[in-house]
Amino acid sequence: MARSASRKRPAALLFDVFGTVVDWRGSVKKELARLGRSHGVRADWGEFADAWRAGYRPAMDRVRRGELPWQPLDSLHLRMLRGLVDRFGLELDAREIAALNLVWHRLSAWRDVRAGLRRLKRGCLIGTLSNGNMALLVELSKAARLPWDCILSAELFRHYKPDPEVYLGAAALLALDPAQVMLVAAHKDDLAAARRCGLQTAYVHRPLEFGPDTAHGGPDRRSTLNAGDFEDLADQLGL
Amino acid sequence: MARSASRKRPAALLFDVFGTVVDWRGSVKKELARLGRSHGVRADWGEFADAWRAGYRPAMDRVRRGELPWQPLDSLHLRMLRGLVDRFGLELDAREIAALNLVWHRLSAWRDVRAGLRRLKRGCLIGTLSNGNMALLVELSKAARLPWDCILSAELFRHYKPDPEVYLGAAALLALDPAQVMLVAAHKDDLAAARRCGLQTAYVHRPLEFGPDTAHGGPDRRSTLNAGDFEDLADQLGL
Repeated sequence: MARSASRKRPAALLFDVFGTVVDWRGSVKKELARLGRSHGVRADWGEFADAWRAGYRPAMDRVRRGELPWQPLDSLHLRMLRGLVDRFGLELDAREIAALNLVWHRLSAWRDVRAGLRRLKRGCLIGTLSNGNMALLVELSKAARLPWDCILSAELFRHYKPDPEVYLGAAALLALDPAQVMLVAAHKDDLAAARRCGLQTAYVHRPLEFGPDTAHGGPDRRSTLNAGDFEDLADQLGL
Repeated sequence: MARSASRKRPAALLFDVFGTVVDWRGSVKKELARLGRSHGVRADWGEFADAWRAGYRPAMDRVRRGELPWQPLDSLHLRMLRGLVDRFGLELDAREIAALNLVWHRLSAWRDVRAGLRRLKRGCLIGTLSNGNMALLVELSKAARLPWDCILSAELFRHYKPDPEVYLGAAALLALDPAQVMLVAAHKDDLAAARRCGLQTAYVHRPLEFGPDTAHGGPDRRSTLNAGDFEDLADQLGL
């Protein structure tokens, strides 16, 4: 049993971060609510968080199409944030906006993450593979005490996921064949792009990513593994 | 006292690895001696380790001057190793040579390193900044259980130290000014190059790096700090 689990175990597990590892919506909403209280402003801070996140993919796609020059996610987040601050009635100066933008460096991990990663680390190399820039991922991981073996970011390849350069570049930096690497993510499009590059994939179900009231799909039938959380993933990998 | 220590504390400590963090000579010599015994070959394995290491700087300099295309340190090590295996009378096939080449992924840390890093990590971001390639650094760090916040390699910049691209690129990836970063190394030329890029520097004295019988210099007067080992460095930074 242990032998058969270890035979199919990938050499490296690389994790998407926003939504998969951390509860970006809950964390951003909480910090916005705190800021709103201190400024005497009431608003739907979940809607603010959702609007901020909704700008993410279109902004990255503009970089991916070459309409914007390469820039790290912190810069794209800041560009989106300026308009949102006005729209939600927050009066912040440039320094305060820059500080708020770093909320993405302070996101909280889902409850199962730390214990799950500690188990997975025993049998596999574990790392990030996120569109977040290096400074963001390093600070977030340190604050949340995530025991990564390495932190890899789209920034290292100057391409955003789902560009193949990111998945193939990560495998190459680890001197592994793509098939020895498994991407772990809560998003089926990210997993599909990784599979097109030859990686194994694991879908992790994060039903609360977009808040409590959202519909969410079923399992990802094309993934090697489907897991309820990181502890379940460790169970399935025999770790 | 704590306040004054924290005022001058850098945001990030980046560590040279070979010689500074790990005892490359002792580790390589030990694995060569084991291999020699299993092949019935006697030789001065310390001399083999020294000769391997002596080829390191000239090989990197050929890459730095553009005489060789960019390649990771694993490739340069392999290129040097082929000649040494013959010279020292080891009969190894290509697969065995490739396996021996990975001894650089399995080096042992100096005795103070793990405890020192755990203390330093409390107050600073800690990471590598080595000419070793990413796969080498990640595997070495996992095997030696080094608690880095991030692993940065010359490979990410396709330049070898002491090229400025490495020091400046590392600070940029961490979104820090060079002056907020301190390079920690046992080699004065590495530290001098970092200072030319505006980094702070700490010299760590590793008198046994080249074996027990070698002369070694005094303190590095131009460095911000001089430390006997990583525990001493933590003391001096008030951590």
